[in-house]
Amino acid sequence: MSELLRRSASRLDLRHGRVEMAHGSGGRAMAQLVDELFLRHLDDPRLRARDDSARFAVGAGTMVMSTDSHVVSPLFFPGGDIGALAVNGTINDIAMSGARPLHLAAGFVLEEGLALADLERIVASMARASRAAGVPVIAGDTKVVERGKADGVFITTTGVGMVPPGVRICGDRARPGDAVLLSGSIGEHGIAVMSTRESLGFETEIRSDSAALHELVAAMVAVAPDIHCLRDPTRGGLATTLNELACQSGVGIRIRERDIALRDDVAAACELLGFDPLYVANEGKLVCICDASDAARVLDVMRASPLGIDATCIGAVVADPDCFVHMETAFGGARVVDWLAGDQLPRIC
Amino acid sequence: MSELLRRSASRLDLRHGRVEMAHGSGGRAMAQLVDELFLRHLDDPRLRARDDSARFAVGAGTMVMSTDSHVVSPLFFPGGDIGALAVNGTINDIAMSGARPLHLAAGFVLEEGLALADLERIVASMARASRAAGVPVIAGDTKVVERGKADGVFITTTGVGMVPPGVRICGDRARPGDAVLLSGSIGEHGIAVMSTRESLGFETEIRSDSAALHELVAAMVAVAPDIHCLRDPTRGGLATTLNELACQSGVGIRIRERDIALRDDVAAACELLGFDPLYVANEGKLVCICDASDAARVLDVMRASPLGIDATCIGAVVADPDCFVHMETAFGGARVVDWLAGDQLPRIC
Repeated sequence: MSELLRRSASRLDLRHGRVEMAHGSGGRAMAQLVDELFLRHLDDPRLRARDDSARFAVGAGTMVMSTDSHVVSPLFFPGGDIGALAVNGTINDIAMSGARPLHLAAGFVLEEGLALADLERIVASMARASRAAGVPVIAGDTKVVERGKADGVFITTTGVGMVPPGVRICGDRARPGDAVLLSGSIGEHGIAVMSTRESLGFETEIRSDSAALHELVAAMVAVAPDIHCLRDPTRGGLATTLNELACQSGVGIRIRERDIALRDDVAAACELLGFDPLYVANEGKLVCICDASDAARVLDVMRASPLGIDATCIGAVVADPDCFVHMETAFGGARVVDWLAGDQLPRIC
Repeated sequence: MSELLRRSASRLDLRHGRVEMAHGSGGRAMAQLVDELFLRHLDDPRLRARDDSARFAVGAGTMVMSTDSHVVSPLFFPGGDIGALAVNGTINDIAMSGARPLHLAAGFVLEEGLALADLERIVASMARASRAAGVPVIAGDTKVVERGKADGVFITTTGVGMVPPGVRICGDRARPGDAVLLSGSIGEHGIAVMSTRESLGFETEIRSDSAALHELVAAMVAVAPDIHCLRDPTRGGLATTLNELACQSGVGIRIRERDIALRDDVAAACELLGFDPLYVANEGKLVCICDASDAARVLDVMRASPLGIDATCIGAVVADPDCFVHMETAFGGARVVDWLAGDQLPRIC
């Protein structure tokens, strides 16, 4: 991630600095916090790899492990809630390595005063998502903190999965000439959550796209075991995910705005709120980078699934020592698509 | 856990009830929340087993997974901090199945405004504990919530481990006649944390016993592969752990107060604060239940380790359909040692 550091204005002030909301954004500030603080001490090659999950060998096989803390606010939103999100999000992080998710663990931090009815609704939603995905929650923990020391409930889910033999999907495998595929339209999750925030008082029919993508991935890997990279564009949106992959692989990426699916109502909500949809979180979409010769086959199986029915090829990987993401705009212009800089959508997942 | 439910005064009010501090205590209220809310929906046999970790088969072997959210307050205390605790605590939960811990994942919820210097001190402490134990942190996640929506930092650690062939250590394997062993003196962690709470203004030299116990367990399992139960008496203390094991196994337990090691300063602090040391949390101790014929051999290897140097046999398992824990007091009397009822020591881990 030296490329990212090189582009950062200044280093973190570890002596006098404080945690800011932007450090949780999924964008550049978070990457800097991870680089300059976490990785400085917890120096493991798998953490340094910055993939969504970490691989390790078990006997003759390869497993992956991934963890995600969920702090979404509000707890309930159109199309989902923190419980379903915590299950689907971690299943997706496992799936993005090409692995079959096996089991989940869930750690709850509860705020004193949380209504048990709300907690039950959340746990029931987790159970439904877990059953629908066929990935059981097998371990758990519950802690309670005083009123005002948390915000309802935070849920940290951790998953383990098994990587099929011969599959090696990592963020550093994008190569010039590769195709960049996107499984569907962007921005629905972020806008659905924002639409419910009291301070906005903004009403839409837009629902979160929260979904477990592991079966879609299994179908893709079955027809193209040599897929290079998979990632779900959550915090920081598509723009940040593409920048991460470009930096990890040491390449550039060129995308075409006209090929990126965007619902009219999401576009309108983004315009109203002043958001660029490229930076708005998704919870049921994935980016796939594969050899150009695999692209048609992968797109076909994506489109055969309800979760990938709107899949498109949005661009290609190019050689670029500066690791820039460029976009050809709908009007034929071109612009650099940078990392998310601040924190436009706090606590989106 | 029907025995526990039978003894509970009334059922949770899922319609109008709210989360209370006691639901995080590790005692009866928490067991009730798990039974009546979590297990009602997330109905997996491994959750229902209520061991510290969940077993699953991988190829020809057996792995375990365990998760723990850490919300200790304050973040720093004599003998440790939330970072070391989060590493050692999860290593211990894995070790209590007899498994060798392999890897950890860590999810951070950070409060806006947390000093980066404090965060770095915590992460450095995690890294030291992880290196000392030989169990790397390979996956992580960071979220940030607004000032006043968390309390500095919460850390959820999840571990995976591999169970040696032939080892099956579970909470339901205690049998009448088994010996009950304890690895050392009780109550130090809880008192060390309480001593630092501002509202107490209470000074002691008592340090947390936070330590990783996996090497001690490996030595014990090497001489006695048929150990029946292992558990670290954390939240709710020794009393709650013994009650859990008695309920899980459907047996009674008889212990002798005179054989339970207790430092004079811990005893004095407990008296001052009005705590019963049997209910005060430990973070570097374990309870072992094994066949009486294995006890001497296991005690010998425990005492050969600095982490088990004060190990003693504190009692025995007996037949008892009511699953009571009885203690012969130091003065020759007898009393029932019940579950922790309220929440005497909130946010101890």
